[in-house]
Amino acid sequence: MANPYDQAHELARVLKESEEFGKLKELHEVVNSDDVAKRMLDNFRQVQMELQQKQMQGAQISEEEIQNAQKQFELVQQHETISKLMEAEQRMSQVIGDINKIITEPLEELYGAQGEQGEGGQQ
Amino acid sequence: MANPYDQAHELARVLKESEEFGKLKELHEVVNSDDVAKRMLDNFRQVQMELQQKQMQGAQISEEEIQNAQKQFELVQQHETISKLMEAEQRMSQVIGDINKIITEPLEELYGAQGEQGEGGQQ
Ligand SMILES: [Ca+2]
Ligand SMILES: [Ca+2]
Repeated sequence: MANPYDQAHELARVLKESEEFGKLKELHEVVNSDDVAKRMLDNFRQVQMELQQKQMQGAQISEEEIQNAQKQFELVQQHETISKLMEAEQRMSQVIGDINKIITEPLEELYGAQGEQGEGGQQ
Repeated sequence: MANPYDQAHELARVLKESEEFGKLKELHEVVNSDDVAKRMLDNFRQVQMELQQKQMQGAQISEEEIQNAQKQFELVQQHETISKLMEAEQRMSQVIGDINKIITEPLEELYGAQGEQGEGGQQ
């Protein structure tokens, strides 16, 4: 009988061979082999991460920090390969999100039906 | 060619037919058809959710609230079917967590290899 783990490995293999993953991997390699692009992207991610951490900790974020993040974002957006990489990352993240929804659907059904179960419908 | 979405639906089907899901569904139905058990569990979840929300908002949690949560927890633990349901939920959550790790492994590999990529290994 098929088991969820084997099936998950099969899905990982298909995902790895997908067009979305191939594109992401290719762009990732291009950006990482370009020292200027890599530094620009690392910088952007660093700034983003610091802001996210501050937000999670409920810390004050200054006008200057917001403007700096905005500047970094515009910079990477103008870099063709980086912006393509970021688009590919968003698409992959969409695919992973969709997959998670599909996989947890049986659980959603089970918990969504809570209260109906065994009560013979409307009452 | 196999695509990730078809494969995810296949995985969802296998998961739904798995022993872990079957057990969870069965216990879920037993608890939900027992009004006393259902109310006890609903109460426990409500208390848990309120505490979690307070924690996320960084709000103060009183000694009384902790003791109340502890009491509710002991109560549901002593209820055989509820405690079995909670164990089945933990097992299912473990399976889902494992599956997520397996699926995102290609991405972990890609991002874990960041900095190595295109740089000819050690330097
Ligand atoms: Ca490089
Ligand atoms: Ca009932």
